[in-house]
Amino acid sequence: MNAGELLSLCKRRGFIWPSFEIYGGVAGMYDYGPLGTVLKDNIISMWRNAYKKGEGFVEIDSETVNPEQVFKASGHIDEFSDFVVYCQGCNEPFRADHLVGDLHPNPDTLDAAGLKSLFVENGVRCPDCDGELGEVEEFNLMFKTNIGPGSSRVGYLRPETAQGIFVNFPHLYRYNREKLPLGVIQHGRGYRNEISPRQGIIRLREFNMMEVELFVDPEDKGWVRYPTIKDETLRLVPEDGRERSITVSEAVSEGIIANEVLAYFIWFTKDLLTRLGVDGERLRFRQHLSDEMAHYAMDCWDAEVLLSYGWTEIVGIADRGCWDLTQHAKWSKQDMSHFKRFDEPKEIERDVLKAKYRELGPLFKGDAKEIARLIEERALADVDNGVLKVEFNGEMLDIPENLFEAVTVREKISGEKVVPHVIEPSHGLDRIFYTILEHAYRRDDDYTVLSLRPEVAPIKVGVFPLMTRDGLDTKAEEIFRMLNDAGIDAYYDDSGSIGKRYARMDEVGTPWCVTVDYETLEEDRGTKDTVTLRDRDSSEQRRIPVVNLLNVMQSLIKGEDFASL
Amino acid sequence: MNAGELLSLCKRRGFIWPSFEIYGGVAGMYDYGPLGTVLKDNIISMWRNAYKKGEGFVEIDSETVNPEQVFKASGHIDEFSDFVVYCQGCNEPFRADHLVGDLHPNPDTLDAAGLKSLFVENGVRCPDCDGELGEVEEFNLMFKTNIGPGSSRVGYLRPETAQGIFVNFPHLYRYNREKLPLGVIQHGRGYRNEISPRQGIIRLREFNMMEVELFVDPEDKGWVRYPTIKDETLRLVPEDGRERSITVSEAVSEGIIANEVLAYFIWFTKDLLTRLGVDGERLRFRQHLSDEMAHYAMDCWDAEVLLSYGWTEIVGIADRGCWDLTQHAKWSKQDMSHFKRFDEPKEIERDVLKAKYRELGPLFKGDAKEIARLIEERALADVDNGVLKVEFNGEMLDIPENLFEAVTVREKISGEKVVPHVIEPSHGLDRIFYTILEHAYRRDDDYTVLSLRPEVAPIKVGVFPLMTRDGLDTKAEEIFRMLNDAGIDAYYDDSGSIGKRYARMDEVGTPWCVTVDYETLEEDRGTKDTVTLRDRDSSEQRRIPVVNLLNVMQSLIKGEDFASL
Repeated sequence: MNAGELLSLCKRRGFIWPSFEIYGGVAGMYDYGPLGTVLKDNIISMWRNAYKKGEGFVEIDSETVNPEQVFKASGHIDEFSDFVVYCQGCNEPFRADHLVGDLHPNPDTLDAAGLKSLFVENGVRCPDCDGELGEVEEFNLMFKTNIGPGSSRVGYLRPETAQGIFVNFPHLYRYNREKLPLGVIQHGRGYRNEISPRQGIIRLREFNMMEVELFVDPEDKGWVRYPTIKDETLRLVPEDGRERSITVSEAVSEGIIANEVLAYFIWFTKDLLTRLGVDGERLRFRQHLSDEMAHYAMDCWDAEVLLSYGWTEIVGIADRGCWDLTQHAKWSKQDMSHFKRFDEPKEIERDVLKAKYRELGPLFKGDAKEIARLIEERALADVDNGVLKVEFNGEMLDIPENLFEAVTVREKISGEKVVPHVIEPSHGLDRIFYTILEHAYRRDDDYTVLSLRPEVAPIKVGVFPLMTRDGLDTKAEEIFRMLNDAGIDAYYDDSGSIGKRYARMDEVGTPWCVTVDYETLEEDRGTKDTVTLRDRDSSEQRRIPVVNLLNVMQSLIKGEDFASL
Repeated sequence: MNAGELLSLCKRRGFIWPSFEIYGGVAGMYDYGPLGTVLKDNIISMWRNAYKKGEGFVEIDSETVNPEQVFKASGHIDEFSDFVVYCQGCNEPFRADHLVGDLHPNPDTLDAAGLKSLFVENGVRCPDCDGELGEVEEFNLMFKTNIGPGSSRVGYLRPETAQGIFVNFPHLYRYNREKLPLGVIQHGRGYRNEISPRQGIIRLREFNMMEVELFVDPEDKGWVRYPTIKDETLRLVPEDGRERSITVSEAVSEGIIANEVLAYFIWFTKDLLTRLGVDGERLRFRQHLSDEMAHYAMDCWDAEVLLSYGWTEIVGIADRGCWDLTQHAKWSKQDMSHFKRFDEPKEIERDVLKAKYRELGPLFKGDAKEIARLIEERALADVDNGVLKVEFNGEMLDIPENLFEAVTVREKISGEKVVPHVIEPSHGLDRIFYTILEHAYRRDDDYTVLSLRPEVAPIKVGVFPLMTRDGLDTKAEEIFRMLNDAGIDAYYDDSGSIGKRYARMDEVGTPWCVTVDYETLEEDRGTKDTVTLRDRDSSEQRRIPVVNLLNVMQSLIKGEDFASL
């Protein structure tokens, strides 16, 4: 298959539409139509259930417009950029590294000078008009705006939902009664102002993410349910590039995956993706090379799927270490740590600075007490060449060493502050959505079937009257309403031949169809009215009593085999 | 009560948090915490079910960043603004009309000059520093950004989700097999770059909307289920300002509400809001005065609720007429109409322009045929002073009347094009969220209860072991897991006295609590183990067999009375 075929089906049947098409469209922007919106919501639900019900995580929903400080701290203002080059002829902007893909093994590791010299050496010109290329410039990929009138408060559209969780850490930590582990999920829009996006919904300027931030004790990177999955197999491509299928515990004990909690959530991601309908045979986990790792990551694995575009990242599972909380603590001057209580209080010895009150008094008079307090707040390590610098009333004072002394004290402490580490499975929702469709797509002699898993399928059952007369339609509408009221997404269709209606449902991934025919209406059957139930994947049919239909549908959706009916 | 009390509860218990608080916060921005996110999602679910399952509407999800053309067409670039005035002393921006609230009955109807002269006449000064105020300037309330590198493509964050539905009308119309009515819903972020937002989550810069756009035949503004609700009562404040409670059909027949479909959805909104937990006694519908109506509306009613802030709009139900589709058709040059098929084909007489080929030939030679086609495309009404202007090869030609003639033709037509009208119930989700909390809030001697409706409550049931020993906790955890796995949001709590745990659950609106005590564990009871089930609103308790607990919880959530257990 090719992606165009699938994208055209998606457009025709209301899964996704290029945005603003009446105005010629905008590259890298897509809208979800009626079927796509339900499919996307079904993916979100399964993800949410896996983390909330399965692992006890909580969910939040934070703002998409953020003030500048957030991204100063997170590093996005400094690091989140690509190199752009404009054609001097047609003025079209290009991503510089995309123009030299054949000339360098890893062009996205090059800087502006490196890219420029590749251009010059190889005489690279504009791929559209063959014009000369200009200078290579850095382009920050965040959408910029202003909050409030004037331009005094700069804001950005968030490039990831994660920061909304990090800046709320103090609230979340209190909500969790100051305990670790603390797992938080968030889904919503992310924005990346791509220079020239291509590839359907794989590379979008406005996209949907499902992110998970798990805060753990940096000295305890295990996970309570790790033992239950440690013998499961993972297909891994570690940093050395040699693909292997090994068990989770082998990967951890051989040091391929850094720790148990990271390994657990790599497995967890595999389990979730396959339950969503990603083909397990076209799924692997690839470790980031150190030079492609994001600025915040200690270790990172991509869930990659094989698509018509080639192997494509759809989830990234990173160990972000203490990067984010440390950065936000530094920039906000707020405490972002966890107080780790010892099993027993510990007695420790500690060197502290003690002010010499007798010397300070004559020198500083009424301010002596405050200066003493400022001295004693500081640590021995702050003393430099016998001098301690102290900020007092906005001025820096040099306090010479005759005004204080180092004293060793013994104290009992009940715990210590640690900055939690963060394990982050970050899901590209639009890419997962697309993968599920591509992996479900079968085409045979112009007949298209989407074999979507029942749990994600936007329509669970089509309901058809054989004819729109003799009460067949009334009965079918009744059944449609009954299913819908019970929360089962049903679709009523009375137009065209039954074969055409089956084909329409097969094409959008509906797993079952119910047909009301003349047998249904035979009066003597009474409560034993039956309907035809047809299975998409086997094309088999069964007659099912209407009174049982709801139960049958519910068990089928839960995974019961049609053949066992 | 006052709003501060409730907002402090909301913050403490994880409903909402001021955004970016570690950085000092940003006015008009709030995040949803763990309980708030679930409550918000429950509101969305009930709204979605009401429209999708109840009325057969479809749902879409479109982009938040939109190119400029969309808002040129929609009128937001010209109309969506407030007047700002800066203090010359402290440089603080103010909404000009907010500074003259006491000096004019309706300051938001004034223009810049009117506001300025009010300032001058009354010597209005900066409310913060008493400084002099500068000029009154218009400030567009859309957040502005650039799409892609450079500033060539201006984009805006959408002020309403509605435009995403309008620009997709051609797709949606085909999805609906080119039939009307066509109902479409969308929820998501909306943005309004307020000059100086106040009032908690009532006036936000980034907010959540649930919008409904119903496209109807302009000549048929009825609704199929209207007869079933026409005798229901509405509390209305029409344009004349005289409040009255009358039936839906009286309001329509007296011309107070413009048409049946608008009246139906006003009633529908009342029904949905009260089911969500809005107090019916503190809910009314107020008609917009003609000078406060948005630029796109033909008639508009606000669902207003009484809050500690006073009467506050939470839903607007507007008849937008054909404004939006007409505008987008004009700006995009795409067809945004509905083809309305007649019951029987009609024979009509029509005046058309006919080119005089004999005269055109000698004049235009090889181009004559194309020029004739261009003439015949036009209508009689296009002829101005005997001259028809025609665009040919980028130039305007004046065609004098001797080159064409008006001819009356008879033709059979099967239908005609009409531009659908739009009925729009637009819901402020954050305001509904806040209203539900405020109307559920009871405080008595320092004891707080949120009487949230079971269907929206973020936690349906608290599960407690009496003690964390003797297997009480194991049993309680089992019950917690059983409820959670069945999709009932449960919360496990084993800390503090049972009274404290009840209080914690009452404070966040949990309708029921289950306690596992020593009676539960009495061995001889076997499958007849019972637990205590406590009802929040009556404080009554019942012993319920564990095997029945799931069924009991499900019926209670559906609305069964606790007293009937």
